[in-house]
Amino acid sequence: MNETRRALLEALEEGPISGPALADRLGISRAAVWKQVNALREGGFTIESTAEGYTVTDVPEYGAAAIEFGLAVPYTVEYHDAVDSTNTRGREVASEGRRNVAVVANEQTASRGRLERPWTAPKGGIWCSIVCQPTVPAAHVPLSALAAGVATVSACRAAGLEAHLKWPNDVLVGDSGARGGHKLAGILTEMEGEQDRVSWLIVGIGVNANVDTDELPEDATSLRAELGEDIDRRRFVQRLLESFDAMLEDPDSVLDRWREYSSTLGQQVRLEMPNRTIEGRALDVQFPGGLVVETDDRQEVVHAGDCEHLRAQR
Amino acid sequence: MNETRRALLEALEEGPISGPALADRLGISRAAVWKQVNALREGGFTIESTAEGYTVTDVPEYGAAAIEFGLAVPYTVEYHDAVDSTNTRGREVASEGRRNVAVVANEQTASRGRLERPWTAPKGGIWCSIVCQPTVPAAHVPLSALAAGVATVSACRAAGLEAHLKWPNDVLVGDSGARGGHKLAGILTEMEGEQDRVSWLIVGIGVNANVDTDELPEDATSLRAELGEDIDRRRFVQRLLESFDAMLEDPDSVLDRWREYSSTLGQQVRLEMPNRTIEGRALDVQFPGGLVVETDDRQEVVHAGDCEHLRAQR
Repeated sequence: MNETRRALLEALEEGPISGPALADRLGISRAAVWKQVNALREGGFTIESTAEGYTVTDVPEYGAAAIEFGLAVPYTVEYHDAVDSTNTRGREVASEGRRNVAVVANEQTASRGRLERPWTAPKGGIWCSIVCQPTVPAAHVPLSALAAGVATVSACRAAGLEAHLKWPNDVLVGDSGARGGHKLAGILTEMEGEQDRVSWLIVGIGVNANVDTDELPEDATSLRAELGEDIDRRRFVQRLLESFDAMLEDPDSVLDRWREYSSTLGQQVRLEMPNRTIEGRALDVQFPGGLVVETDDRQEVVHAGDCEHLRAQR
Repeated sequence: MNETRRALLEALEEGPISGPALADRLGISRAAVWKQVNALREGGFTIESTAEGYTVTDVPEYGAAAIEFGLAVPYTVEYHDAVDSTNTRGREVASEGRRNVAVVANEQTASRGRLERPWTAPKGGIWCSIVCQPTVPAAHVPLSALAAGVATVSACRAAGLEAHLKWPNDVLVGDSGARGGHKLAGILTEMEGEQDRVSWLIVGIGVNANVDTDELPEDATSLRAELGEDIDRRRFVQRLLESFDAMLEDPDSVLDRWREYSSTLGQQVRLEMPNRTIEGRALDVQFPGGLVVETDDRQEVVHAGDCEHLRAQR
């Protein structure tokens, strides 16, 4: 069913196509084509029947079919008006053996961030969990997490906002305060695997998009607040998926792009880890995703923790 | 039930103890103590009732209570005469929220190795999966896998056999042939987690212990074959758990011990990864578990793959 819809949308992207040609291409009856086309119309698509065939003239603002229409990478989108957590739903999808699925919701009712911390996910945001299985050893997964941060900043910049990355992958705007700016987006990566391979990887990306700041925590901001208008969430999610997928295909590109978008490198930082805290200068990020920090007496590589940008000591 | 048994065994380890004292210590009735003591007797323990109290004078060869008796670390042992795979059973244990459990079997009927490769696990071997949750970022898990290899070699050496480690954690004996020796034990590490923490880690350790080599693949050997006699599997598993747990507590010790036991460092090696193969000299192992290899034109760090020792080119 979803596969047929995806194939239909791909055929329609290319321009007008007749009912019989569609039936041929999808391997279904003309009656089934008609039914599918009507389902899209009920879903908000404007599809005109002209002499040359069916033509899409308008696409709904958001939703599974809207995101899939024109999407350049082979992801299936599962859309929810509301869901407890797209990552939790993503785990169900993963356990069913499905891969290359984006679980997208308009609202999350029991959203969670890193380390079970609460995460506010009101209506109008972009709450998207990508379920995939990169063919890399488990030790390379941090690079995929950085790629998700890069993809998010890239989509924000395409929408007109100069967001930046605080290690490992907080997406921030502005640079006031010790937290390095106001939080625009966050990423929660979950995985299962063995040393040689990943069974599934879920990259949950939460972006405060078309949301008022009074619905968000105090230190957060939104695309709406920063840009003064709503963004096209459909196009944003498409860019996110396309950009993330391109980096999975070309992992060598991730670190350079991360460095370009990062506001952490060169900064004096405090890193809080479960059993210790260090302070030092953030020198670089290194494969597969560790932050190289120079403290008073040594260099070390940190793999996870809370990073705070300290006031510059120049 | 298991907790009471564990507490009873701990009390008995310390020497003779009276029924009333046991009842006090375990917070159960004297009738319940008598029942538990009889259950141990039925399980093969010889427990004498003397004037000073209950005294353990003999312990069964193997089994949950036998391994727990005298075990210096707080692991619960779940023993099976036969199970499909101790790692598969370990995943069930993990999903029930239990941690610090060792699933031990006399035989695995559907045993699997790395990358779903078959693994022969006949009766008499040591098939043990440790279910735990180290408080480290997911990126540090490779170190726990190396620790499992070190613990296994350490237990083999305590049993009298000079085994060694081929990166990352194949346990081998002898050094004939390109494979670096005959395979004595293997380790399969599986995990689930997010970037900042591990939800569960299962370290499956398979040792060809009291097994004839004609039950094993051609390139494998067993402790029985190498030593000419059977080993004490109970003591072996105890040492394995104690040594592994000590390294989780003191991760800084792992790499030095790995280097000491390794036959890979200094060797010319071929590393087969999913999408490429490299050859070079194995220089070192570095935190959190990568092998540093010097090829003709560069140094690189490899995180997973099949390692083959090539014939020395000196």
